[in-house]
Amino acid sequence: MTEGQEMWLWIGFAGMTLGVIAIAAIGRSARDEDKHHFVASMFVCFIAAVSYFAMANGQGIVDLDGRSVYVARYVDWLFTTPLLLLGLMMVGLPQLRKVEDSRSRTSLLTGVIAADVLMIVTGLLAALSNEDAVRYSWYAISCGAFLAVLGLLYGPVRSIVKAQSQATAPLYGTLLSALTVLWFIYPVLWLLGTEGAGTIGLTAEIAVFAVIDLTAKVGFGMLLVTRVAGLSRRAEAGSSRPVEASVAAAPASATA
Amino acid sequence: MTEGQEMWLWIGFAGMTLGVIAIAAIGRSARDEDKHHFVASMFVCFIAAVSYFAMANGQGIVDLDGRSVYVARYVDWLFTTPLLLLGLMMVGLPQLRKVEDSRSRTSLLTGVIAADVLMIVTGLLAALSNEDAVRYSWYAISCGAFLAVLGLLYGPVRSIVKAQSQATAPLYGTLLSALTVLWFIYPVLWLLGTEGAGTIGLTAEIAVFAVIDLTAKVGFGMLLVTRVAGLSRRAEAGSSRPVEASVAAAPASATA
Amino acid sequence: MTEGQEMWLWIGFAGMTLGVIAIAAIGRSARDEDKHHFVASMFVCFIAAVSYFAMANGQGIVDLDGRSVYVARYVDWLFTTPLLLLGLMMVGLPQLRKVEDSRSRTSLLTGVIAADVLMIVTGLLAALSNEDAVRYSWYAISCGAFLAVLGLLYGPVRSIVKAQSQATAPLYGTLLSALTVLWFIYPVLWLLGTEGAGTIGLTAEIAVFAVIDLTAKVGFGMLLVTRVAGLSRRAEAGSSRPVEASVAAAPASATA
Repeated sequence: MTEGQEMWLWIGFAGMTLGVIAIAAIGRSARDEDKHHFVASMFVCFIAAVSYFAMANGQGIVDLDGRSVYVARYVDWLFTTPLLLLGLMMVGLPQLRKVEDSRSRTSLLTGVIAADVLMIVTGLLAALSNEDAVRYSWYAISCGAFLAVLGLLYGPVRSIVKAQSQATAPLYGTLLSALTVLWFIYPVLWLLGTEGAGTIGLTAEIAVFAVIDLTAKVGFGMLLVTRVAGLSRRAEAGSSRPVEASVAAAPASATA
Repeated sequence: MTEGQEMWLWIGFAGMTLGVIAIAAIGRSARDEDKHHFVASMFVCFIAAVSYFAMANGQGIVDLDGRSVYVARYVDWLFTTPLLLLGLMMVGLPQLRKVEDSRSRTSLLTGVIAADVLMIVTGLLAALSNEDAVRYSWYAISCGAFLAVLGLLYGPVRSIVKAQSQATAPLYGTLLSALTVLWFIYPVLWLLGTEGAGTIGLTAEIAVFAVIDLTAKVGFGMLLVTRVAGLSRRAEAGSSRPVEASVAAAPASATA
Repeated sequence: MTEGQEMWLWIGFAGMTLGVIAIAAIGRSARDEDKHHFVASMFVCFIAAVSYFAMANGQGIVDLDGRSVYVARYVDWLFTTPLLLLGLMMVGLPQLRKVEDSRSRTSLLTGVIAADVLMIVTGLLAALSNEDAVRYSWYAISCGAFLAVLGLLYGPVRSIVKAQSQATAPLYGTLLSALTVLWFIYPVLWLLGTEGAGTIGLTAEIAVFAVIDLTAKVGFGMLLVTRVAGLSRRAEAGSSRPVEASVAAAPASATA
């Protein structure tokens, strides 16, 4: 590993650690019902910090016929991407009253997360494959799983979110757009980087990954927790208004 | 890998992929409450397709002192067998009304799946062991875990199923018999194949595994989803009849 | 492996197996609502027995530049420590009536177990690291996660336990003290043993680990299940007394 590469991995570690501290600081004044969002966002940054710490020390990197595969990234993503998706869906689909609704929510959450896990696992298999035909087949399967995740989030999940709550639907939309843009960079970067065509060098790849990772984890996490806290404050302020209004806003604070 | 072996692995991949498509096609007209059965059965076939794709490309196969251990199989089974068992138990034990019942159901599901995971993990340890004494000790432990799974499914689970619902008990019985027969072939094949006595060659072993895997995943999945859909249709048709009858049939459509 | 080392690993295996049998024997007469405690304690001992069996046969031990890393231990701990923590917390936090309470319980359980898993994973990374600076950094992170586990158990979890039930609070306190004392020995032993300073030899380390493991799994499990059974008997005997008293004692038998 060159000094430049190592430096970017330490920057990733430092940024993720600061992210944990920043989210913890914001979370001190959060309502009890919103605490789980802060805890999940902290864990996302903490897991990424552990992964960057490992890679900066040369761990979790497998040498495969002259190529370095950063396996630690995939282990990180295996746990952080489900947590990020859960956070997004919990914003849009707070605790449901009716048993049937809560059952279809569980099915949706499970489906999205299973597709996401398949996306990461097949992505790792692509990175570990030497033959081009095999690599790009795995890559295509992984992209298919990514499209399945997006299809569920923009289709069935969004229509339930809209049907349920006027208060949370815009926030769900904002977070989903942010996540879509950020997550699309990963497969493109994979294709341009050392795992794919090799258009950009390893140092540039590591640097861009660090910046995107920090945006998609620390940035996304802080966006989520500050907006959720804002929503809860407004719902609280609105609880002096007529009962109908507070009922419509209530699910925002009832996220579980 | 010989060409014959590779061909059988590609047959496995093609069959599992067709299974995903077939189950998705049947599932389009399914009731919302039954959708989770289709999603789970599709995931079972999809995970197996990924595993066969990997093995056909020579991935997930560990060389151990001249023997080839198909580790990808065990990774596949680690996720698909719990899904198959969950599907079976969800047919028999739909969403329960009383909290205490739902609690003992969770305990049973957890127990069956924990025993199943131990069965697969100790089976992998058997395959990875070189010394005969160690191999067959792991094999015996794995068989013990298999018997524990069957003991729970034929004992406590079946008695709750019978006590609860007249409508679903026969389907649970049919699926349990099919699963028992199919799953018993695996330890026998292991014993006869290259992992055990070596009575049958590697090509024959791979071919038989492919056929059994397709039957136990695609076949079992299609049996489960068509029967569940039929049960739901009958429950719906029966809802115009007296209340007692519809109550007795209701749990079939309330599976979660 | 020397004969002395192998002997201690077999002692560990035998002890864990006897633990499974002993807990199963005590559990035969347990109330249905307490059965899950027996099943979980049996699984803890069974997983540890499998791990000791593997190590006694020289499996699950990775050679790393002349050092032997007992990876099987960490795999064992990855599953047994969450089960032990769940058992402890389930004693203190039985099934809650109100939805909000049950939600904050889920958050607490998830937080404790996530911190515990990070403790074990970073502990394994410490054991697998060759450079001293890297080793002790991982070790420090792992200890931080351990302190987070204890902080949650002595802080928020204990205050909910006290607020909820007069009957279970003393048992929670006793079990938490036992667990704290026993679990503190592990990082100290790590530091003194071959993974750390090397003050004590490998044989002594394996022997002490076997004794502590048996105490923390078989001993702790038997303490938990006999006390829970005693609590249930007293709650039952008290159910003829005035309603207030039986309500106060009820949660003990409502553990899920």
